[in-house]
Amino acid sequence: MNDVAIVGTGQTKFSKDDGDVEKLLFESTKNCIQSVRNCEPKDVEGVLVSTNNNSKYLGAILSETMGIQPKISHSIEHLCSSGTNALISGYAYIFSGLADIILISGVESATNPGQILEWDKSRGSFEHPIYWASMLTKSYKRKFQITEEELAIVSAKNHKQAMDNPFAYSNEPRTISEVMNSKQITDDLRILDCSRSCSGSSSILLASEEKAKTISDQPIWIKGIGQKTTSASFTKNILEEIESTRIAAKTAYKMAKIGPNDVNVAEVHDAFSVCELMAISELGITASDKSGEFVRDLFNTENRMINPRGGLIGAGHPLGATGISQTIEIATQLQGKSEKRQISNLKTGLIHNMSAAGTSSSVVVLEN
Amino acid sequence: MNDVAIVGTGQTKFSKDDGDVEKLLFESTKNCIQSVRNCEPKDVEGVLVSTNNNSKYLGAILSETMGIQPKISHSIEHLCSSGTNALISGYAYIFSGLADIILISGVESATNPGQILEWDKSRGSFEHPIYWASMLTKSYKRKFQITEEELAIVSAKNHKQAMDNPFAYSNEPRTISEVMNSKQITDDLRILDCSRSCSGSSSILLASEEKAKTISDQPIWIKGIGQKTTSASFTKNILEEIESTRIAAKTAYKMAKIGPNDVNVAEVHDAFSVCELMAISELGITASDKSGEFVRDLFNTENRMINPRGGLIGAGHPLGATGISQTIEIATQLQGKSEKRQISNLKTGLIHNMSAAGTSSSVVVLEN
Repeated sequence: MNDVAIVGTGQTKFSKDDGDVEKLLFESTKNCIQSVRNCEPKDVEGVLVSTNNNSKYLGAILSETMGIQPKISHSIEHLCSSGTNALISGYAYIFSGLADIILISGVESATNPGQILEWDKSRGSFEHPIYWASMLTKSYKRKFQITEEELAIVSAKNHKQAMDNPFAYSNEPRTISEVMNSKQITDDLRILDCSRSCSGSSSILLASEEKAKTISDQPIWIKGIGQKTTSASFTKNILEEIESTRIAAKTAYKMAKIGPNDVNVAEVHDAFSVCELMAISELGITASDKSGEFVRDLFNTENRMINPRGGLIGAGHPLGATGISQTIEIATQLQGKSEKRQISNLKTGLIHNMSAAGTSSSVVVLEN
Repeated sequence: MNDVAIVGTGQTKFSKDDGDVEKLLFESTKNCIQSVRNCEPKDVEGVLVSTNNNSKYLGAILSETMGIQPKISHSIEHLCSSGTNALISGYAYIFSGLADIILISGVESATNPGQILEWDKSRGSFEHPIYWASMLTKSYKRKFQITEEELAIVSAKNHKQAMDNPFAYSNEPRTISEVMNSKQITDDLRILDCSRSCSGSSSILLASEEKAKTISDQPIWIKGIGQKTTSASFTKNILEEIESTRIAAKTAYKMAKIGPNDVNVAEVHDAFSVCELMAISELGITASDKSGEFVRDLFNTENRMINPRGGLIGAGHPLGATGISQTIEIATQLQGKSEKRQISNLKTGLIHNMSAAGTSSSVVVLEN
């Protein structure tokens, strides 16, 4: 067999400070390698850095700093889903036998590029993501009779869940009414509907089946992978759907030999409140016209199934680190090591990470 | 079997003009897909862009332009060896079953970043690559009694070979004496010892064994892969060696089950004249103290075994495209389609691509 496992994880606190990407990478990588019982920097055969930062040769710089002399090293960029792109690339290197242990490190500074679709002027100067998010929100609410309160619950729930995440950007609880009365940004969006760009780094160590069994007590296995890019422009999107997520999920479920009902816990890409509702629908976890109700039930029963670490809205969104941080949460949950955030009886978890108004999605299924 | 083949190739002319990366990518990709008998853009499942350009989401932009809706897409950066990093990543995706057909497109504009080791101030303001190349040249010449004429032959040979490459930056023949009398840049380097940064794009289509046999008459197989990063700083290097190349070559030969004597043709990373001599030594094609003589013999007998397309010195060095262009040359030679440049009786070819003063190397072995 050629299974690939997550064997180590490390993070930095996400913050609004303008972070130094090299220092952030070093900190999360150090924490990551130290988290593994029996692994030294010299054992690491690949270093993939996921970021939108413009610095060059970061894979080699991180390797130098850590005392790693890898076979494979480079940087990977695909906007907000750079992290899962790097993770899946690491999987492929290990599965194909080119390396046994690979470090995946994501990093972003709050002021890094990659936060707007610079090439897409089809809405004139309305180029900030809040405008596409606003259009999606208006359309999705109308088509599926989602209420303003249900949207506000997404944010209130994720802020609440982030309170138990020591790495989260936000440590403030937000009530539904605080969300609904927060500063209005567009007709359909308030400030607390939006994730915040921030600085932070997250790292994962991947290992081949053989290595994983010797260096880890609780390897978490990558069982399903799906990816899809449908467009480079938001213009082509149907406003109530995220086609790339639907296709990626189908591929990932097929590979993992599961269906959406088997998913016990998921981190989904809630760049804005509406994205969480759209994501859980496209992933098949609930129906679109039930998505508001679904999230309301989670909130009322304190069920952390969706975005237990607080999602992007609660934990912050350091672009290149986001997908890796999502993956760390699911892996840690499946190991039973999520402390105050721990959900019981988990077997299967899912990560959903997307880019550029949902024009591109990655879905990864993990099992313990 | 899980073999991976090169099934299509496409290039643009390399030039000193400040190129538009999107247009260059489009041109080489169009040529690449058209080169394959039975492949449409919709069949392409992955788009990996290798570049040092700071534009984001180029994989999706190229896909949009071409009518591709890939599973996998992102950009890859590792300075001058970004191209082979992307190629090897594509191999891993296909080998692991995540995709059957992947496009690898490298691009650079002459003014793009990535041309100096910005983080390495250990030689003060002497940060341009000519300074490390000058130090390597002085040391290598002294240790292995290489003459100035032998170094000049590298450049004269590669300029001559580039004359038959319609995509090359240089179309001018350069005699040994012209090289030796060209403008002096440092104590040990003249202008014609240096490759030129330029604009250009090169694309390759990779396919799984099963797909390759249905869409290509002459698939070229990737049989060996080796990579190594030893440092992020030139300072640690021993001046007469390129350790990363030696290690990468050993891995690639082992995987391909061949030795250096089996190599019939090679593209090596002659960023400067001395790099060609060092590369062919570290690859085991000749001994270090015979490398000058070896290249003199090639030149005198018009044997194109090393850098048949003109290498970086003759063809130009658009960073992110270089490794892909080197690979195209070896694949085309192994297909017997190199026209005026064709070498006869080829079975095995090799690509050597490196970054940042040889601190990182990739070696790839191809067979027909």
